[in-house]
Parts: sequence; structure tokens; C-alpha cells
Amino acid sequence: MTTNLLFNNILLKNSFLCVGLDPDLSKMPTHLLSCDDPVFEFNKQLIKATHPYTVAYKLNTAFYEALGIKGWISLEKTIKYLNQNYPEIFTIADAKRGDIGNTSTKYAEAFFSALNFHSITVSPYMGIDSVEPFLAFEDKFTIVLALTSNTGSKNFQEKTIDGKSVFKTVIYESLQWKNSQNLMYVVGATKATEIKEIRKIVPNHFLLIPGVGAQGGSLKDVCLYGMNNQVGLLINSSREIIYAGNESDFAEKAAQKAKLLQAEMKQELISKGF
Amino acid sequence: MTTNLLFNNILLKNSFLCVGLDPDLSKMPTHLLSCDDPVFEFNKQLIKATHPYTVAYKLNTAFYEALGIKGWISLEKTIKYLNQNYPEIFTIADAKRGDIGNTSTKYAEAFFSALNFHSITVSPYMGIDSVEPFLAFEDKFTIVLALTSNTGSKNFQEKTIDGKSVFKTVIYESLQWKNSQNLMYVVGATKATEIKEIRKIVPNHFLLIPGVGAQGGSLKDVCLYGMNNQVGLLINSSREIIYAGNESDFAEKAAQKAKLLQAEMKQELISKGF
Repeated sequence: MTTNLLFNNILLKNSFLCVGLDPDLSKMPTHLLSCDDPVFEFNKQLIKATHPYTVAYKLNTAFYEALGIKGWISLEKTIKYLNQNYPEIFTIADAKRGDIGNTSTKYAEAFFSALNFHSITVSPYMGIDSVEPFLAFEDKFTIVLALTSNTGSKNFQEKTIDGKSVFKTVIYESLQWKNSQNLMYVVGATKATEIKEIRKIVPNHFLLIPGVGAQGGSLKDVCLYGMNNQVGLLINSSREIIYAGNESDFAEKAAQKAKLLQAEMKQELISKGF
Repeated sequence: MTTNLLFNNILLKNSFLCVGLDPDLSKMPTHLLSCDDPVFEFNKQLIKATHPYTVAYKLNTAFYEALGIKGWISLEKTIKYLNQNYPEIFTIADAKRGDIGNTSTKYAEAFFSALNFHSITVSPYMGIDSVEPFLAFEDKFTIVLALTSNTGSKNFQEKTIDGKSVFKTVIYESLQWKNSQNLMYVVGATKATEIKEIRKIVPNHFLLIPGVGAQGGSLKDVCLYGMNNQVGLLINSSREIIYAGNESDFAEKAAQKAKLLQAEMKQELISKGF
């Protein structure tokens, strides 16, 4: 995958929506629970219904790991299904990994080579040698946590190191790392002002933005401050889409919700001249 | 598991050694590769041989994830084997997880409930609500990355927020979190001076210390600065022990290496009056 291919797909679909596939047995439609693999069935139906409106899918590994080996089988089946049927769609392993060098290499092998995701989210806390093993993979993307939208972002990310916030320090430092062109950043949608400042530091990198909608982020503001000449944004929505319905028509309901978001995004794209 | 039980086991075995089970197919004895489950066989033989000298085993999830579903099966079999045969031994999922609240809950369920590890390592970057879901589990421990021994620790951990280093800020903040008695901290063995300072902030918490030996950390210095009245240290060694040999006697070689480290630890315990 390349950012050019991603950009082309954004223009084709008039969308920069990412759907988060976070399957939770206690929330999904009960008629699926008797399936051989309820999680994969849930994901497959969601993908079939929502793919016209989305350019990316994000699989949060926690929801699969919580189900043990069965969960990993569902994860593997889902990413295979995506790669085989929708190779143009950008895939994200939302794994928030990061460890010393040789261990990060193992994680990179797990998600980039074995599972064949296009990208992975990583935590920057351990610094350069915890992230560079991911960046070493060509045409794969490493999405560094910069400024998240949760309460705890105040504890460290928003504090100040040498006059700069921690999240800005993370971004500046990461630009010095080898293959920094393979970086993207996680920035919460509720932080519109900070998105503006981040865009000045990384004019060309893609931002993965959770938190639009229910969590309070405004799509308009995010676009106003975050768009670049390749759009440069992936807006994630998980629960609002995948649990839009809870009956046999859950996938249709999810598609309706995705379509609404896509329509808003189309307006933003048009107003920005794309 | 409780710290009292851990302390008792330390006194019983005269050891505060943790063995890191980081199986790598390219490094393990070739005669194991024809086994049905080489990774589990490798781990089982290592555990059988080294358990008299160790009070903890640490499984780094990256090495299992890199093998896909097979790796997760080996991980599950290994933790089951440990819990069934050596329930007094402290187990660590070295997973370095951390995400927003509901997602961290899923990770906690995965490692504490489903797999039944006694503890997990977590990254503090996302703050309070990314760690508290782990702390909510009674008699389970959450081992927060504080100061690691890798090169990248300089990028953020050793920088200064309001006159305090980032890793100290992490420790101070974490003490405000609910159930902070369930915390432990990762501190690299190469940072003896900092261990002294950290001990002042957390006199009662256990520290998980990688990096003694090959990576340059001194056991003597770590004990001098890090021991508290419950010993309060778990010193991890992975590669030096598990790859001490590469032939059919690999487990015996690993046990010899573990025994040497245990003997050094016994001397330290005696000299500190335990």
C-alpha cells in the first residue's frame, strides 16, 4: 500500500472513513452467536455492507485477544478476507505495540508479514529503537500515538517538555527516525486546535482520527484544520457504525450510518476542492 | 497472587530471578522443530529444568504472535502448564498493552481472566483510563513501563516535565490511580542511579528489572539501590538463560545458567539480612 493508492481510493469513493471492527459478543446480534465463527460472520457482513463508503478498516486486537485462540482465528480470517476481496482498502492493526528492537521486529513480522496488515498503531514511549523496526517495512505504515482523545491524554501527552507538549515532542522526534515517510499519527478528533498545530509540523503525513460523533469531535473542524493536499485524514468510527443495529438487518443499519458519514465527508471534500 | 506469596517464594528459593520465555524458532535446538508444538516443548523443558532457581516466568507476547495462531496456542499451553504445575510461581504477560478504557478492559480480560496470568506489562502513554482497567483486577499486578534500558529511553522517558523526568512523572501520577497497590514498574538494570531515586518514590512496590548481565546491568548495584523489605525486585534474564545451549542438553545448560544467577542472588539476600 502507498499513500497515493490511499488518496486515489479516497477520491474514488469520496470518503476518508475508516470503520473500526471491534467485535464484542455481548453487543452483536444474538442470531450470529450460533454461527461457527460469530466474529468473522459479523465482520464479513459488516464489510460487505459498508465497503462502498469506507477506505479503511481498523481491527482493534484487544477485542480478538479477549476471545483467546478463537479470537485470533477470527482476526486472521478477517484480514485474509479483506486482502482477498478488497485489496485497495487500507487495513490497520490497532495493536498499540512497542518494545525493544528485537521484540518490535517480532511484532512487525506478526502484523506486516504473517497477517499482512498495511499498518499498525504503536506506542512511542520506548522511543526510536521501539519504532524503527516497524518503519523498516516498505509500503507498510506505522501509526504512532501522538494525542489521544481519552481523559488520560492529560496525564502525559499534554504536559510540556522543554516548552513543547509531549505529543509534539513525539512527532518532532519521530521525524528524525529512519524511514519516517512511513509514519502516520493518531490524533483525537476532540483536539481540533491541536490538529491545526500538528498539521504545521507534519504537513504531508496522514492522521488517523478517532472520536468524531458520539465522542464529541466535529468533522468540520477536523477537516478545516487537518486536511492536506492528499486529504491526509482517516476518520475512524467503530461502535456508532457496527452497533447501529442489533437485529438481522444490523449490516444494513451499519451501511446506512456509514453512508451518512460518507455523505458528510463528500461535502467536505467538495468544499476543499477535491 | 499477592506480594506476600511472592516474597515467601523468594525467601524459600533464595532467588528473585525471572526467566523470560521468548521462543524463537531460528534460535532453539533444531531437534525440537520436528515436535508437534516445538515452542511449548521448548518452554516446558526450560520450565522443568529452571524452576528450582526462579520465582517468575515472563512470556513476551511478540514471540508468540509472530507465529500466528500456532503461537497463541503455545502461549496458552505454556501459561496453563505453569498454573497447573507451579501455581506459586509468578507469571508475567510481557505484552506492553494500553488503550482507552473499554479496550484496556478487553486486554485485561484476555490476560487476567482468559489466560490467567498474574500480571501484565503496560505502556503508560495514554494515562489513567488506559491503566485503571488493569488495576481493577484483585490479586493481579499491572507492571507499568517507567524507565527502560534501551537506547530510545532517551527520546522521552529521560526528558523533563516541570523539573521532573518523564519516568518519574509516570510513577508519581500512577500512584494517584485507583488500586495503585496493584502496580509494579519496569526499570532497566543499567540505570542504577535512577533505581535509587525511584525507590524513594515507591518504597513498597516491586520493580521488574531486565538488563542484568549481557546488557550491562550490575546485579550488585541493582540490589544496593533497589531492594526493599520484601526484596521488591524481579530480575529478568531471557536470552542468556534460554539460549545457553543449543543441543539436546539445552535445558540443562539453561538450568546451570539460572543456578549461577540464583547463587549470586542468594549472596545478595544474605548480605542484606534476608
